[in-house]
Amino acid sequence: MRGESSGNIRKREGISEATIRRLSNYYRILEDLEQEEVATISSEELAQRYGTTSAQVRKDFSSFGSFGRRGLGYRVAGLMENIGSILGIDRSWQLVLVGAGHLGHALYQYEEFHKQNFHIAAVFDSNNKKVGRKWGELTIKPMSELAATVEKFQVRIGVIAVPPKSGQAVADRLVEAGVEGILNFAPVKLKEPDRVFIRNVNLSIAMESLSYSLSKGRKLKPF
Amino acid sequence: MRGESSGNIRKREGISEATIRRLSNYYRILEDLEQEEVATISSEELAQRYGTTSAQVRKDFSSFGSFGRRGLGYRVAGLMENIGSILGIDRSWQLVLVGAGHLGHALYQYEEFHKQNFHIAAVFDSNNKKVGRKWGELTIKPMSELAATVEKFQVRIGVIAVPPKSGQAVADRLVEAGVEGILNFAPVKLKEPDRVFIRNVNLSIAMESLSYSLSKGRKLKPF
Repeated sequence: MRGESSGNIRKREGISEATIRRLSNYYRILEDLEQEEVATISSEELAQRYGTTSAQVRKDFSSFGSFGRRGLGYRVAGLMENIGSILGIDRSWQLVLVGAGHLGHALYQYEEFHKQNFHIAAVFDSNNKKVGRKWGELTIKPMSELAATVEKFQVRIGVIAVPPKSGQAVADRLVEAGVEGILNFAPVKLKEPDRVFIRNVNLSIAMESLSYSLSKGRKLKPF
Repeated sequence: MRGESSGNIRKREGISEATIRRLSNYYRILEDLEQEEVATISSEELAQRYGTTSAQVRKDFSSFGSFGRRGLGYRVAGLMENIGSILGIDRSWQLVLVGAGHLGHALYQYEEFHKQNFHIAAVFDSNNKKVGRKWGELTIKPMSELAATVEKFQVRIGVIAVPPKSGQAVADRLVEAGVEGILNFAPVKLKEPDRVFIRNVNLSIAMESLSYSLSKGRKLKPF
């Protein structure tokens, strides 16, 4: 993304989670197109693959600048570069994961994170029985080493996979240690300090979207 | 939800994932208010707690009917009942879970599912080494028992927590067995048959929303 004029900045203050989620989904469609060796795509085709309107696609892109020329479509490679840059997945991110239970292990093994440049640098647990165990090349560390590890690997993102009652305390420790973003899988809503970004992931919400559709017999428009 | 006139039905064809997700989040705020023994809430207060505008709140509700009287606010109990009914969490849902790995185990233990009336009736795995193991009161079953279990417990929802390469085959088995909705945690996009609803959960998408905020130093508006 270039040409970051003050006009663009003003616009971008209104960006919503839904817009960013659509960009992530467009990016995945573009990955498929690249595999299929497709070089260009129109907003109509992209919209159809995702299940939205071409007006929505163009609106999503226009929040960030101009990515294509009307009538010519978008270059797949160029669009991936632009969206990758907006999402920040054009660089590598080091993470720390707190919570070495089943959910933590599942996240550690989750291939999509690696694929999109998110790398777990270290895993922590407050349970002494778990500390010292090996997960692949990683050794589970005690919480006392959190701050030093965050500093050493210049970690900016912490992932929380602990039971709900420990969620806030772990978040506080991560913030103290200097992380700037937290992805929280504990089903408890965390307080968001001023200089830290928090995303609370609630796995039950996708389930409720499904029970809505089953109860009412209705599909939903995607984000 | 009552008074399901044809006018309402027409409107509801345009409901988006984002609207349903907001309803799930409003519902959680109402649960907190109920705990705090708050009896009524205005659209302004609800909007402020969630981080959106009162116009958005009113628009979300108006898609489904009239839930309050202007100037009087909403009754917390009544609003929970209405939203619970829309989301279909006013009844109990039986699920089958396929995949007894770490992610499966984490989902089995996930308290939010139970809290919102989603109950795992049985767990399946194609690995004979896992079949027969106990998870609490459940015994992991072989895939050959899937169809009979779905029928016996009148299961409508299947949860997929298998590696990506097995995702589509498991989805096909679930559809054959008669489930009507699938919550898919395998990072592979499933084909959606006509009479089955599918939600693909990609845990990396929330991470990308975080890397967007960290790269650009910007908060996002919630859904």
